[in-house]
Amino acid sequence: MLHPDRLLPADPAVRTIARTLYEQAAGAPLVCPHGHCEASWFVDDIPFPDATDLLITPDHYVLRMLASQGVSYEALGVPRADGSRAAVDPREVFRLFASHYHLFAGTPSRVWLDHALGHVLGVSEPLTDATADQVFDHVNAQLASPAFRPRALYQAFNIEVLATTDNATDTLDAHAALKAQGFGRIVPTFRPDALTDPLRDDFAPSMAKLAGQTGEDVTRWRGFLTALRVRRAVFAGLGGTATDHGVIAPATADLDAAQCQTLLDKAHAGTITAGEAALFQAQMLTEMAAMSVEDGLVMQIHAGSRRNYAPSVFGRYGRDKGFDMPGPVGWADGLKPMLDRHGFEPNLRLVLYTLDETAYARELAPLAGAFPTILLGAPWWFFDSPEGIRRYRRQVTETAGFYNTAGFVDDTRAFLSIPARHDMARRIDAGCLATLVAEHQIDMKEAGMLMDELATGLARRAYRLGQPSAEPQRQSA
Amino acid sequence: MLHPDRLLPADPAVRTIARTLYEQAAGAPLVCPHGHCEASWFVDDIPFPDATDLLITPDHYVLRMLASQGVSYEALGVPRADGSRAAVDPREVFRLFASHYHLFAGTPSRVWLDHALGHVLGVSEPLTDATADQVFDHVNAQLASPAFRPRALYQAFNIEVLATTDNATDTLDAHAALKAQGFGRIVPTFRPDALTDPLRDDFAPSMAKLAGQTGEDVTRWRGFLTALRVRRAVFAGLGGTATDHGVIAPATADLDAAQCQTLLDKAHAGTITAGEAALFQAQMLTEMAAMSVEDGLVMQIHAGSRRNYAPSVFGRYGRDKGFDMPGPVGWADGLKPMLDRHGFEPNLRLVLYTLDETAYARELAPLAGAFPTILLGAPWWFFDSPEGIRRYRRQVTETAGFYNTAGFVDDTRAFLSIPARHDMARRIDAGCLATLVAEHQIDMKEAGMLMDELATGLARRAYRLGQPSAEPQRQSA
Amino acid sequence: MLHPDRLLPADPAVRTIARTLYEQAAGAPLVCPHGHCEASWFVDDIPFPDATDLLITPDHYVLRMLASQGVSYEALGVPRADGSRAAVDPREVFRLFASHYHLFAGTPSRVWLDHALGHVLGVSEPLTDATADQVFDHVNAQLASPAFRPRALYQAFNIEVLATTDNATDTLDAHAALKAQGFGRIVPTFRPDALTDPLRDDFAPSMAKLAGQTGEDVTRWRGFLTALRVRRAVFAGLGGTATDHGVIAPATADLDAAQCQTLLDKAHAGTITAGEAALFQAQMLTEMAAMSVEDGLVMQIHAGSRRNYAPSVFGRYGRDKGFDMPGPVGWADGLKPMLDRHGFEPNLRLVLYTLDETAYARELAPLAGAFPTILLGAPWWFFDSPEGIRRYRRQVTETAGFYNTAGFVDDTRAFLSIPARHDMARRIDAGCLATLVAEHQIDMKEAGMLMDELATGLARRAYRLGQPSAEPQRQSA
Repeated sequence: MLHPDRLLPADPAVRTIARTLYEQAAGAPLVCPHGHCEASWFVDDIPFPDATDLLITPDHYVLRMLASQGVSYEALGVPRADGSRAAVDPREVFRLFASHYHLFAGTPSRVWLDHALGHVLGVSEPLTDATADQVFDHVNAQLASPAFRPRALYQAFNIEVLATTDNATDTLDAHAALKAQGFGRIVPTFRPDALTDPLRDDFAPSMAKLAGQTGEDVTRWRGFLTALRVRRAVFAGLGGTATDHGVIAPATADLDAAQCQTLLDKAHAGTITAGEAALFQAQMLTEMAAMSVEDGLVMQIHAGSRRNYAPSVFGRYGRDKGFDMPGPVGWADGLKPMLDRHGFEPNLRLVLYTLDETAYARELAPLAGAFPTILLGAPWWFFDSPEGIRRYRRQVTETAGFYNTAGFVDDTRAFLSIPARHDMARRIDAGCLATLVAEHQIDMKEAGMLMDELATGLARRAYRLGQPSAEPQRQSA
Repeated sequence: MLHPDRLLPADPAVRTIARTLYEQAAGAPLVCPHGHCEASWFVDDIPFPDATDLLITPDHYVLRMLASQGVSYEALGVPRADGSRAAVDPREVFRLFASHYHLFAGTPSRVWLDHALGHVLGVSEPLTDATADQVFDHVNAQLASPAFRPRALYQAFNIEVLATTDNATDTLDAHAALKAQGFGRIVPTFRPDALTDPLRDDFAPSMAKLAGQTGEDVTRWRGFLTALRVRRAVFAGLGGTATDHGVIAPATADLDAAQCQTLLDKAHAGTITAGEAALFQAQMLTEMAAMSVEDGLVMQIHAGSRRNYAPSVFGRYGRDKGFDMPGPVGWADGLKPMLDRHGFEPNLRLVLYTLDETAYARELAPLAGAFPTILLGAPWWFFDSPEGIRRYRRQVTETAGFYNTAGFVDDTRAFLSIPARHDMARRIDAGCLATLVAEHQIDMKEAGMLMDELATGLARRAYRLGQPSAEPQRQSA
Repeated sequence: MLHPDRLLPADPAVRTIARTLYEQAAGAPLVCPHGHCEASWFVDDIPFPDATDLLITPDHYVLRMLASQGVSYEALGVPRADGSRAAVDPREVFRLFASHYHLFAGTPSRVWLDHALGHVLGVSEPLTDATADQVFDHVNAQLASPAFRPRALYQAFNIEVLATTDNATDTLDAHAALKAQGFGRIVPTFRPDALTDPLRDDFAPSMAKLAGQTGEDVTRWRGFLTALRVRRAVFAGLGGTATDHGVIAPATADLDAAQCQTLLDKAHAGTITAGEAALFQAQMLTEMAAMSVEDGLVMQIHAGSRRNYAPSVFGRYGRDKGFDMPGPVGWADGLKPMLDRHGFEPNLRLVLYTLDETAYARELAPLAGAFPTILLGAPWWFFDSPEGIRRYRRQVTETAGFYNTAGFVDDTRAFLSIPARHDMARRIDAGCLATLVAEHQIDMKEAGMLMDELATGLARRAYRLGQPSAEPQRQSA
């Protein structure tokens, strides 16, 4: 079901080179510095419920594709925003999914699902209408066995480190428990979006929680910043090495304290306008960079997603249901105020992720290929795919090289797809390197070194997850 | 002159796969749901005049390329806007064209022209200075024979259905005559641009004609909408299944009736500003979607063309002379008001065409890969080409799959190029599928099914041109 | 060290075709109509100082990549804006460079440097930590020999013509001296940016110099234009055939003389706003086009670079140090006012260069494929690279063909990289043509003709550098 040469270049000579490179990296540990798994899964080590709840209902890639061809979220039993859920038989949902599996031809979901079914779960036949019941039963039987509990899979997947993404005010109890138990290396990532976007409906409760957790007066600009520093330190104390910031536009600002206080006042009062809220967010990115200069947390920016684009889907089913839509993103103009201030700070590291590929060659590679503080993050979301990764390498490498990229991140809440995602990236990267070898731009020795970097080295260093001694020193230009 | 493996991938193994797929689809009927042929050609079945009038003068791809290298439209005898025309010898024009034929190397025009000459018209030698007269005479002789009259060619081309594009106020006499005669399946498409863009010089006369045709008071918002509904029904009655809307930007709006009446008043009074006219157009797109919800006509949006960009060409020669220029197009933000209202209506189908390829992966595939109402139209205009189709498949498929695309449309007024255009698309699509097979993302059986879909199935279903029973039911998410 | 088949397509059959085409063009003379070498080098014919000063310190591609990985410009001995410079040992800098040479894997800099070292300078081993001293000594020994002086290299490189880029007020003494000496064909290019952008810090001194050189009253609009005409004639008198204009956005305007005088007044007074300065620049592009209509100088526009993006780098080290950042560029809307006025003038030729590749297929190929006055310049700056050239050909050719492109320009101040840059372009272009041959879009005879055009013919004609009799006549459409 899974061809050993899948996703490698078709040309026989290039494929041979690519296969050698892929095989070198195929067994390397999985470094997972950005994703959306839950630490609690590993504390409790509770079995996954069934094939439907594991593979379909929580996967927004799968949901949106089914929706696009008229399958309703009700028929799929997607949990509603109010916590209720249509009473559907998981087996019926799995059959419905199987009967639409042809929709995924040529998509990364198909690659991930085939890998999860075939490689992880030991399914031996392609998923079709005819095999749906059999696959459903087989997967459920597997999930009930000890070898498929979260902790066993974590070990079997050879995960070296797994970063979660957590609200700034999350208690991180699960991370603390795992640390106490000494299980794995599952580290939190500080994501303060609910505190930096005054228009979010959870802004006020998040602020209240922040005040309670830190004892700071978060209505004062200095108190607010101090509270954020306190929380960052808590994350770092549990092994966190990074922050994450989701924005529509990577605009930054460099305001004085009085202006900041005015914006904060309006944010708390609920009187802030859309333009002021955007300015507040822009200022907060610069503040977060300043704090990264202090505490060394790697700062990720994910830009371009218009979240919850379809109000009817958002109203009924809530966030992350496949109806977030990208749009154009301008990086060079947006980041300038922050870079003017912090762009050469020795301790700062920015990792930039985009949903607008036109910026790869035009803005992101030139930025990452010049500023010592900037690395370019892996192809994100819709672009974490064979063609997406190829476009990224072709458009980024010539200006930024390989060493100004931040390695692969699986960025998923679909735990069973993690090995598939790393495997896909390693295969496609092997193909990209093999093409450079075949065209005599690099030799096989260099390609082998680069393959190791792309598989693990770059991610370890970018996210400061390796041994400190292995970290090359960076100076300002 | 036409190599049997032309446009197939160069790699021998991939080519072998591609050839198998292409051969499977090469003889399939031509489904032509969007184009610019004239129904009247088939009513009258008058022979095409000569090679120049058939292949050169009406083809804006050819005209603009010759203009770009300094050939004047006067020397080509291009009809002027006032109806006059330079007295040029068609043979001399054909010689002039032949002497510039090298300009077309690497362009789709070259592929289409070589196919029309070599495959349709039976020319056996490449077109050069030396063969110009011979080719001219040969083509003219062919055109004079019964086998090359419009009806005979329609049959020889194996056209299953041919949609024309017609003004909303067109009388559709030719379509009615064809229906009465029982010839072919040539259906009109409702294009109301002259009624939805108040700044067009034919806005007022079109409104007057609409009022006359329908007896409605088109100065009242409700009367205007009713008149449009009446006309849509006339189109549907003659077999039409679609509407078409050409806009610079796919902006939509959702205004109340009073605001609409105010804009309509200003439009009729000729006092509407550019901004108000854009808002009127945006509202009209939403109204057209609402009517499609009612009557089931498939709604096409073609966005991005700055029409009549060169005023000197437009002033002297009128529309469609090769001087329309594309620009950036933002889809996700533009369509939101309409999608908020109608995005999940079971009866609505939108087919989106863009001149800004950057939106393929960034906006259009995410929209088509989520909304049940949206399909992505074929690569349009400048992108109906080997590389254009390849870019489309590579950038669209991973997010939207194949089944959220609307199949191929030839979109031409160059009747003799219709088989060439379908042939090119089938060859390039066969190559794209073959690459997926060679990289083991799909197997040969799936590729064969997809090949049929890309050649005919998707277009039939997208445009509701098949048997109603073959139409898969779509539900809202 | 340099594989004979480097940069040719990997597929064996396509490579064979590409090799034949490349070999045909490999020895053709180098036509260099746009670049940044200094005419004075050839007047004085002074040896280049050492490997570091030749290959590292002046190359902003190299500098920015080293900076991006934390190497400071001080450690590299980059000259400061105030003329001072850290006291660093050139050998130590070369070692530092060698120890970071792996950063360039997959970049064009690596290709150029390997070619300069291996092909021009006769280095026989790859550059590594271990070989750094040996390479440094070898290169320095070469540079001390007569064969590596500027004039000898100019001859050895087989340069047919070399255009420099010069301020409008440059005295052009070196060009005059070369003309008097009868050495080579090194011609100036008229670049008036310091006179057309009122916000540049050298605007006022440049205006003063212009007034002094021409005796015109440059505070009056007519006098200013006359002074520019006088200077253009000086450039043309020394063999110059082109002007060059660097702008962030290719906006143009068509103002009346009174408006122009008002803007000029404010520019001289130093009271001009940013918006007015942009409008002044836009008007100046139209004026430059008008003068090209008169004097036939080819007008180049380079758009998209946000110069001196990092104020700390600019403040300390000045211009052209690798911290210019691209951004989006809109061509069709920007050029319209100028094209409305001059777009069909028989004597006008515009050559357009972009840092925003999204415009290739969307705007630039449609413009160049229609207007007789527009040619599309070579892939520029970050895109003068294997993938950059491939993207350009794939996105431009289908709409504009080959004959609406302006040929290759090396655009460099790195003299030793000139042969490498032409060689890279010829190899990649050979591969692009070979793919068209392998897919049966063109035959081998056409490919051979196109190969000659791409290597030399197009550039000669685009820049009016060939024999006047070889210039095809262009008429307006």
